[in-house]
Amino acid sequence: MTPLKPGSTIGIFGGGQLGRMLSQSAQKLGFKVHIYDPHTDTPAGRISNFKSAAPYEEMAAIARFAKDCDVITYEFENIPTITISAAQQFTPVHPNVKALQTAQDRLIEKTFLAQKADAPVIDFRKIDTVEDLHQAVSELGLPAILKTRRFGYDGKGQIKIDDIDEIPAAFKDLGGKNLILEAFAPFVREVSIVAARDHNGNVKCFPLTENVHKNHILHTSSSPTSDPQNVEETAKSIAHRVLDALDYVGVLAVEFFELDGGKLIVNEIAPRVHNSGHWTMDGDCADQFEQHIRAISGLELGDPKPKVSVIMTNLIGDEIEQIPAYQGKPNTHVHDYDKKEVREGRKMGHINVTKPLTDR
Amino acid sequence: MTPLKPGSTIGIFGGGQLGRMLSQSAQKLGFKVHIYDPHTDTPAGRISNFKSAAPYEEMAAIARFAKDCDVITYEFENIPTITISAAQQFTPVHPNVKALQTAQDRLIEKTFLAQKADAPVIDFRKIDTVEDLHQAVSELGLPAILKTRRFGYDGKGQIKIDDIDEIPAAFKDLGGKNLILEAFAPFVREVSIVAARDHNGNVKCFPLTENVHKNHILHTSSSPTSDPQNVEETAKSIAHRVLDALDYVGVLAVEFFELDGGKLIVNEIAPRVHNSGHWTMDGDCADQFEQHIRAISGLELGDPKPKVSVIMTNLIGDEIEQIPAYQGKPNTHVHDYDKKEVREGRKMGHINVTKPLTDR
Repeated sequence: MTPLKPGSTIGIFGGGQLGRMLSQSAQKLGFKVHIYDPHTDTPAGRISNFKSAAPYEEMAAIARFAKDCDVITYEFENIPTITISAAQQFTPVHPNVKALQTAQDRLIEKTFLAQKADAPVIDFRKIDTVEDLHQAVSELGLPAILKTRRFGYDGKGQIKIDDIDEIPAAFKDLGGKNLILEAFAPFVREVSIVAARDHNGNVKCFPLTENVHKNHILHTSSSPTSDPQNVEETAKSIAHRVLDALDYVGVLAVEFFELDGGKLIVNEIAPRVHNSGHWTMDGDCADQFEQHIRAISGLELGDPKPKVSVIMTNLIGDEIEQIPAYQGKPNTHVHDYDKKEVREGRKMGHINVTKPLTDR
Repeated sequence: MTPLKPGSTIGIFGGGQLGRMLSQSAQKLGFKVHIYDPHTDTPAGRISNFKSAAPYEEMAAIARFAKDCDVITYEFENIPTITISAAQQFTPVHPNVKALQTAQDRLIEKTFLAQKADAPVIDFRKIDTVEDLHQAVSELGLPAILKTRRFGYDGKGQIKIDDIDEIPAAFKDLGGKNLILEAFAPFVREVSIVAARDHNGNVKCFPLTENVHKNHILHTSSSPTSDPQNVEETAKSIAHRVLDALDYVGVLAVEFFELDGGKLIVNEIAPRVHNSGHWTMDGDCADQFEQHIRAISGLELGDPKPKVSVIMTNLIGDEIEQIPAYQGKPNTHVHDYDKKEVREGRKMGHINVTKPLTDR
């Protein structure tokens, strides 16, 4: 693809914090940004050059939006694929629909990972009836995790089953259809790789990142991290294979469980910039948002090598009110998403704290 | 001052690249931005939350703008002081009018620097008649630089006089009134200090920066720079005194001539973020734009200590077309101001190239 010229317009479906940070990177590179979101007042829309406020199912609005853009992307994987299909009749959309379809459904995702990307996944079973679930539990053992196939995030749409007695309630609570049972992964830690792939198939990975969750929501990401079991290169190879198998353009995150003994299991993939890559904003490298914009715009990928060590801490819900305590602290970078309303469990901002690389 | 809460609105007079980069920093901190500029379509206005397009002399528009903002600043020193005075009837404006008045007029500036800030300046004379000029030349010697007192930038509004015969033409070419003659400073290099001062009088300086001009326009800024004559601490003390003497809040730049022997002469001050501070954007520190926003918003100043070495190169006029050649280069950060039209001598963007600090 011919690189987009500065002044071109990048369309983004979704006006949340990821769209906002993508916008800022796009604007830094001289691009204009058009945000499409069902809401009129969004964190990204407020700083964008143009915005469209319309439902994701409104085909006429999508057509108008797409015709105004030179390339289109999205900030979250739960956008209807029909929206993307409509938009790409007029304008290229990256990442492609296949990536979106794959990531939207845990069953398709895990099947793809195992069969097409030679990526290790946890044992899983498709669950459509309570009998399926009993059978699956007998095969995978307990504890196991029952999940909805679609629309789960931050621990929503999943229930850990520790005892056979819990099967009926768990099945019912998750809606009783389109479920997946996953064996329990006894991991020693969670790590991720955020990687970018350009139109020519070049892949650049950020370093291995260690992630700590609190109440199922990402709490901290640290990079670089110690790697006593030497998993970094394996993790990068897996990410590379996933990107290639999807013929992917843009940034993608692969979340892993690291097991005792050094085996990695892919937990899930996200076809977008990812919370575990927010540390890159202050790593003095081409950060994940810039990499994504570069990739979809046909620019060469930037240098993903950080020059400092960074620990990112999410500010969830009313933790955003702690921001004044962080202001003015040395080596501390505050990112506030300018969300209108504080809600429990809502990602409101994050803090990046940097250290010289030699300190680790 | 009580720190502004995220979600508050920062007003900026001027919609150019400095206003744009200030906006991005303000938005990163969770503030909203309102740009006031006589033009409707500006680099900063395009990414701002709100904008007002009206002349700087339109008092009703200024009042509406000011009432909408929680604090106001400006991106350039040639804004009419009457505009600032009008705005601050409703809302605090930083830096203050005194700083603006001082920096707008080379005669007032140099007098202030010498008398109030104990800052070394080159010999100068007020010139209102051709006789004044002859007299001044006989006192200061040749070569000397004749300048307009106001509205000079990037070498505009100044003529070097090498010979007495050139006096009448130079005097006439610069308008024949409100001029200043400055002795010639035989400098070995040009350096600057960009410094921030908060509401409590705390001052934080970025490291000494070495600046190279080409055709009177800043070409490169490098920091850190070697300092064989040990001028850095002196330069910082002078900047500190200037900030205190102006009771200044925000970021200010002091440009110096460094003479053989280690003496520093203040060339000029800029009551704003400054081109020679653009390298800070990729220095992995609180950059000059963030420091300015922090200062005027009553936040504590951030950490100005860079973790990497940076060389900034301006892209002037059609040099912006070289951007594709920089894309994808390692350690290279591209900043494009999204200006509508390429013009000769116009600052269109800049490139920051980073290196580990130990490489210098």
